[in-house]
Amino acid sequence: MGKVLIFGHQNPDTDAIGAAIAYANLQKELGVDAEAVALGTPNEETQFALDHFGLTAPRVVEKMAVEASDVMLVDHNEFQQSAADIEELNILAVVDHHRIANFQTANPLYYRAEPVGCTSTIVLKLYKENNIAVPAKIAGMMLSAIVSDTLLFKSPTCTQEDIDAANELAEVSGVDLNSYGLDLLKAGTNLGTKTEAELLDLDAKSFPMADKTVRIAQVNTVDLAEVFIRQEALRDAMLEENVKNGYDLFLLLVTNVLDSDSELLVAGEPREMVTEAFQVKLENDRAFLPGVVSRKKQIVPQLTEAFEK
Amino acid sequence: MGKVLIFGHQNPDTDAIGAAIAYANLQKELGVDAEAVALGTPNEETQFALDHFGLTAPRVVEKMAVEASDVMLVDHNEFQQSAADIEELNILAVVDHHRIANFQTANPLYYRAEPVGCTSTIVLKLYKENNIAVPAKIAGMMLSAIVSDTLLFKSPTCTQEDIDAANELAEVSGVDLNSYGLDLLKAGTNLGTKTEAELLDLDAKSFPMADKTVRIAQVNTVDLAEVFIRQEALRDAMLEENVKNGYDLFLLLVTNVLDSDSELLVAGEPREMVTEAFQVKLENDRAFLPGVVSRKKQIVPQLTEAFEK
Repeated sequence: MGKVLIFGHQNPDTDAIGAAIAYANLQKELGVDAEAVALGTPNEETQFALDHFGLTAPRVVEKMAVEASDVMLVDHNEFQQSAADIEELNILAVVDHHRIANFQTANPLYYRAEPVGCTSTIVLKLYKENNIAVPAKIAGMMLSAIVSDTLLFKSPTCTQEDIDAANELAEVSGVDLNSYGLDLLKAGTNLGTKTEAELLDLDAKSFPMADKTVRIAQVNTVDLAEVFIRQEALRDAMLEENVKNGYDLFLLLVTNVLDSDSELLVAGEPREMVTEAFQVKLENDRAFLPGVVSRKKQIVPQLTEAFEK
Repeated sequence: MGKVLIFGHQNPDTDAIGAAIAYANLQKELGVDAEAVALGTPNEETQFALDHFGLTAPRVVEKMAVEASDVMLVDHNEFQQSAADIEELNILAVVDHHRIANFQTANPLYYRAEPVGCTSTIVLKLYKENNIAVPAKIAGMMLSAIVSDTLLFKSPTCTQEDIDAANELAEVSGVDLNSYGLDLLKAGTNLGTKTEAELLDLDAKSFPMADKTVRIAQVNTVDLAEVFIRQEALRDAMLEENVKNGYDLFLLLVTNVLDSDSELLVAGEPREMVTEAFQVKLENDRAFLPGVVSRKKQIVPQLTEAFEK
């Protein structure tokens, strides 16, 4: 077996990068010639975590096949969220916490998915199962991933296992969980300096639903109004993205990380699926979704179901 | 959560039934209202094992949705090998050792696949991870599954983990691994009393490859000639199955469990894929494949690759 590249999804977030770093280190300890890489540069939240723990961002790789034939995926499985040449690669392992879709292999593989809030929570289990200690810096990155994915335990995706893992990792990495966690989340809400296109691309994923392609972007903020003051420019940018990339429907989920609510901005069609899925009326292309913070648990399944009816 | 049905693939083999029984018992110990069921009656090998350890065959269920909405799959994931109404069911968990294909969920789930020889080897790990002891009868069923899937460790799918698990389970169940193992394998080779249609259905799976449907059946024997004396009748039955079920290509893999070789019988088209995949000439619809005993590792990937070229 030659070099094995390990990476998370496109538009990497803190878990995509943190879990890749942590799982690559584990694989190296197990004797695999593994390297964590990424399908994009870190966002501000992730960079804050990397800087805080003195780690370097993984090298950005676009085409994998030129340098490795074997790969391991973390924090995703759907091919349209993965490397551009994923279908040419031999997938040895997946560690993930999402639904499984648009994924297939020709060979048996190691696949570890659990319905927890964060991939890094599962990676911590794998360290334990293999009796390998997590280095302090990497523990800090894994902790950051759990805080990020669960919005400091407020997301409905969060489980007791995530909370326990975060507490354990906070101890190993030597940070105060709550104060560091809030600093981390705030580092990701600095949206004012970003163009609309950048903002839409921060944390966006595409989902095939029925015969349509739905793009769902999420941004975190501490003030919804600060984002919606740019509503018209955002809507124009979403429509432009739809045309450019063949998306049918674009949803922007703007999440207030302090109040744990979200407001949705919708561009494209069929928007009646949004009305159907969330039992809301769209007013001025918007809908307020109280208590909604999780794309994975509170947006994607409901919307998928509406499309499949 | 209401009742949870746990089952293996269609045309169940010893692992499909053994892993379902074992995983259902584990789930019950963990507080889940679980029941092992099956998508068919046990074959002779499996019945031999059930009888030997004093267990009852799982109830055969064809439509799941009328009695449960939540299910767990063992020893398979591809929907065409699963319950007829699998797309209506909520899949909570999968424990498997096959490639992943034709599988998707709307929600995150527990998915545990490892590239080992037998699902029951993974189920034993899950017992250990949860600190639950395996009851002796169930240990016997799991051991039988490992012997069956690995042809008593001779299959290239067999790993050290399978061997270790089998030895441990033999101790718990109180049988002599080698003598019991040979008796079990021989119990599955009693083909003389079966019609051609029964023989083709003993252990058969369908695989979509490119735009074709390939049916691959496997039977075990201690004497290849005993099967091939019925070649014409078998070929006619295969062609009939193709027409009746829309298969394009039907492969019957006849495996000598003592010599660890197989001979292939082919009906339908495109048969040049077989030539291409295994670098053999078909003579009289047949090809001898020395050292080939595993459909999963030595047939499906090679054929998939030939179709995708």
